[in-house]
Amino acid sequence: MVFLINELEDIGEFGLIDLIRQDTINDAGRVVVGIGDDAAAVLPTPRQLQLLTADMLVETVHFNLMTTTPRQLGYKAVAVNLSDIAAMGGVPRHVVVSVALPRSTPTQFVIELYTGMKAICKEFSVNIVGGDTVSSPQGVVINVTAAGEVEPANLVRRSGAQVGDIVAVTGNLGNSAAGLGLLAAGQWEDSAFAWPLVAAHLTPKPQVRTGQLLAIAGASSMDDISDGLASEANEIAKASQIGIRLHADSIPLSPELTAASARLGKPALDYALYGGEDFQLLFTMAPDKYQVLLSAHPELPVIKVGHVVGQAEGVTLVDQAGRAHRLEARGFNHFRQEE
Amino acid sequence: MVFLINELEDIGEFGLIDLIRQDTINDAGRVVVGIGDDAAAVLPTPRQLQLLTADMLVETVHFNLMTTTPRQLGYKAVAVNLSDIAAMGGVPRHVVVSVALPRSTPTQFVIELYTGMKAICKEFSVNIVGGDTVSSPQGVVINVTAAGEVEPANLVRRSGAQVGDIVAVTGNLGNSAAGLGLLAAGQWEDSAFAWPLVAAHLTPKPQVRTGQLLAIAGASSMDDISDGLASEANEIAKASQIGIRLHADSIPLSPELTAASARLGKPALDYALYGGEDFQLLFTMAPDKYQVLLSAHPELPVIKVGHVVGQAEGVTLVDQAGRAHRLEARGFNHFRQEE
Repeated sequence: MVFLINELEDIGEFGLIDLIRQDTINDAGRVVVGIGDDAAAVLPTPRQLQLLTADMLVETVHFNLMTTTPRQLGYKAVAVNLSDIAAMGGVPRHVVVSVALPRSTPTQFVIELYTGMKAICKEFSVNIVGGDTVSSPQGVVINVTAAGEVEPANLVRRSGAQVGDIVAVTGNLGNSAAGLGLLAAGQWEDSAFAWPLVAAHLTPKPQVRTGQLLAIAGASSMDDISDGLASEANEIAKASQIGIRLHADSIPLSPELTAASARLGKPALDYALYGGEDFQLLFTMAPDKYQVLLSAHPELPVIKVGHVVGQAEGVTLVDQAGRAHRLEARGFNHFRQEE
Repeated sequence: MVFLINELEDIGEFGLIDLIRQDTINDAGRVVVGIGDDAAAVLPTPRQLQLLTADMLVETVHFNLMTTTPRQLGYKAVAVNLSDIAAMGGVPRHVVVSVALPRSTPTQFVIELYTGMKAICKEFSVNIVGGDTVSSPQGVVINVTAAGEVEPANLVRRSGAQVGDIVAVTGNLGNSAAGLGLLAAGQWEDSAFAWPLVAAHLTPKPQVRTGQLLAIAGASSMDDISDGLASEANEIAKASQIGIRLHADSIPLSPELTAASARLGKPALDYALYGGEDFQLLFTMAPDKYQVLLSAHPELPVIKVGHVVGQAEGVTLVDQAGRAHRLEARGFNHFRQEE
């Protein structure tokens, strides 16, 4: 990437908006007014619920510009929001993007940031319909708000899990956290196993199509795994007033994660349970519906990891010896010190 | 205000979310899922367009905690977004709020911040349906995204102004900028005239009901005055490909502004033209429709300030001697140095 000499001071806020506005509409039939007016105006699909979600990413807290390119950062800032829409069983339609940037930010940085956002928006036919660009005294802050839609009958909440349901996930867990660990240790460019982990961390893939299929198939509860399996299982248990029993042997771990965990000296399962930012989906479903789903969609990479039990049992992890351990929510928490 | 000993480290992110969630729903019939799931789910009004807008406020750039209380800050962060919905002729329905806070932030600060947000949301029957709370290495950042609705026939864009239309505003201009000037100079607590100006700056009132009336009355273009009259007139002129002739004598200035401008040594008109953050509405309308509006709503505080002319004439200000001056957009621009 070649950084141009231009910095934001030279092109100003309105020059920046003109730059941003290009290639933001991927589903023109839904957009009456896009970027450039006081607000965007969009056409909703009749008889659908509207979904709204937001995530804010703060430099040094959520990302480090030493280890992510601005293009990857833009991609991820949108991805984490599309993942939240996916976790409700919905289809993402539009995003609104606010960015705070130091005045000295190179124009090329902003172009790359939006290139990443535009890439994922194009991939999912999502429109960028508005936002705000402001100056920051220190550090980059990005807020993305996503608007999506879902048929009322397909809305999946965290609170619908039933005793007897299976508990399953949509793919390998722990990759993202191990990728972060490798980035932080500066030990990854020499190892083939590291690349997919680093990619899982820097450019996660929201499970949008899978989320819709699971919703239609009758998932009783669903959550995207942003804070680690342990934390999300506890979230569903709390919201649904049930317990969850997970089987350590069933939790899907990639061979790359196993290799990285040896390098980093931390058990692979720890990354899956407490690492976070996998953006796979965790869901519960009645066993008969789950069987129908597997038959109808053998290509779906869903893996059963446990089942729903009574609330009194809490959230437990059964180890290889068959012993059950209480599983605490120990995902990332913004206002607590790490233990 | 009594600051408690608790800081955010003590209650954590999830304790914080429980605090925030109270009193967030003012229009329950529209909310299927509020704060606490991956995304909110809301019921749109059939056959209306959905409006989306976002504003990000950054400490030291947009506000100074030496001169605003957290409650005022929360109020304003929502107000500026409702103003954008008003400028499209719409009704605000929901907001999604992201806040980045230093870990050392007192819990009471957060409670007060949300108290301000909840106050204005209650005033306008708006729901707080979601958001994100994250830590910040330095300084508070707030992003509010507002979702609103408008009948397609009542949508007002910036681009519809026609030659011959009148140009009008919904109230006094310059108050907010003069209030900011007084706050910055530390000269306001001793002067009765200062209080309404400071209030106009710290807790601006979005012109939501007026915006809807103007839309129904047939406003051909509309903009909220966030960057000063000069800047907004240029925005409408550019979007509508017309010119605007404003009359200096007609621009409504409050007696308080006149008093403050004497104190601050800067012409009152400068605050109105270049000051910004008034959050009054600037609109254009066919003269016959404007007469009907005035007859039907004599209580509306609208003031005619000029009219729409051909594009070749540009945006001008006619002074008391009848001389026309080119009016440049000199509102606040985030990435240019001040002249």
